Amino acid sequence: MKYIKQPMDIEKRSFEIIGEELGEHSFTDEELLVVKRVIHTTADFEYKNLIEISPDAIKTAKEVLKNGAMIYTDTNMALSGVNKRGLNQVNGKIICYVNLEEVHIEAKEREITRSMAAVEKACNDNVDIFVFGNAPTALFRLKELIKEGKANPKLIIAVPVGFVGASESKENMSELNIPYITVNGRKGGSGVAAAIVNALIYMVTDR
Amino acid sequence: MKYIKQPMDIEKRSFEIIGEELGEHSFTDEELLVVKRVIHTTADFEYKNLIEISPDAIKTAKEVLKNGAMIYTDTNMALSGVNKRGLNQVNGKIICYVNLEEVHIEAKEREITRSMAAVEKACNDNVDIFVFGNAPTALFRLKELIKEGKANPKLIIAVPVGFVGASESKENMSELNIPYITVNGRKGGSGVAAAIVNALIYMVTDR
Repeated sequence: MKYIKQPMDIEKRSFEIIGEELGEHSFTDEELLVVKRVIHTTADFEYKNLIEISPDAIKTAKEVLKNGAMIYTDTNMALSGVNKRGLNQVNGKIICYVNLEEVHIEAKEREITRSMAAVEKACNDNVDIFVFGNAPTALFRLKELIKEGKANPKLIIAVPVGFVGASESKENMSELNIPYITVNGRKGGSGVAAAIVNALIYMVTDR
Repeated sequence: MKYIKQPMDIEKRSFEIIGEELGEHSFTDEELLVVKRVIHTTADFEYKNLIEISPDAIKTAKEVLKNGAMIYTDTNMALSGVNKRGLNQVNGKIICYVNLEEVHIEAKEREITRSMAAVEKACNDNVDIFVFGNAPTALFRLKELIKEGKANPKLIIAVPVGFVGASESKENMSELNIPYITVNGRKGGSGVAAAIVNALIYMVTDR
């Protein structure tokens, strides 16, 4: 059977196809790298109309990532999808607390989600970038913690997916006065979250 | 801020909403659990029209999973998304070889993808269920290995995503005479793959 077997050729050709089919848009060149990588991960062009990138998000992301960023993510799946070789190149670190025993216990006792208990714990760790691909409750909780002065991240990647609270959790991101990348509406997910993080990592590393 | 904080309530309500909005379909009740879980993971109702489940796939999956299935997946991201508690309940195992040093070396020497080299290695391990959410080349290679008599899985979950080879890799799945679940066209992904595996696991376990 004949099929392309060289990984970098496959990715290059994929991005060409996405560019050809994308149509009109108002993204900057760097923002476009984020959008294209999300479409590459989902094969879903609707993301072109759903992704919202705050004006300072890319610049901030590059600065933060160049200086050994601490990244928190709400799922081990998103964590698993982030390019560790790239992240290691810039001395970055990515953590997820959702499966810790202490987080399970805390969540059960207080009848909250593990994602919420995990994000509370993460606020003790000087997280630079919060990445939410799954849990609206984690994003809701982070917003509360920011308003209470208990968290002060430099960037938020807010792309929870789903039908209960996901869309609402992503509303009014600009009110926080923190740079953000979000996906409006129900769509998003751990794969989308990892794709956005990787697009940003690739801006500051060699591949 | 008021938002639902009980995880099982969130999932239950999500599935209700999906059911309300899904419209007409011809899936069986059990097939529908797979379709709904994919939509739950992607918030993308187009999957209703893209998912193809061979007539014997659900029955086979349940039999295989009840008896300690060996599952191979093409990405650590899909592996990470599979519910380990459920899988442990039925003595199942899930593996991914794409990051092994020997696989890197083999792929580099032969100028093939790591996914291909990894799937070749997996064929020595009596894999019951192959799960592909990312790599068309892995699925192409598995099809070749099956035709050469070097692999004989009981079920294939074939949902690579992308623009180069993904759609083609999923064509003519029925020719293999092996039960399968696939997503026609470009869509799919590691999250979709994990969602399908989890839907099947939940059919044979307590949650």
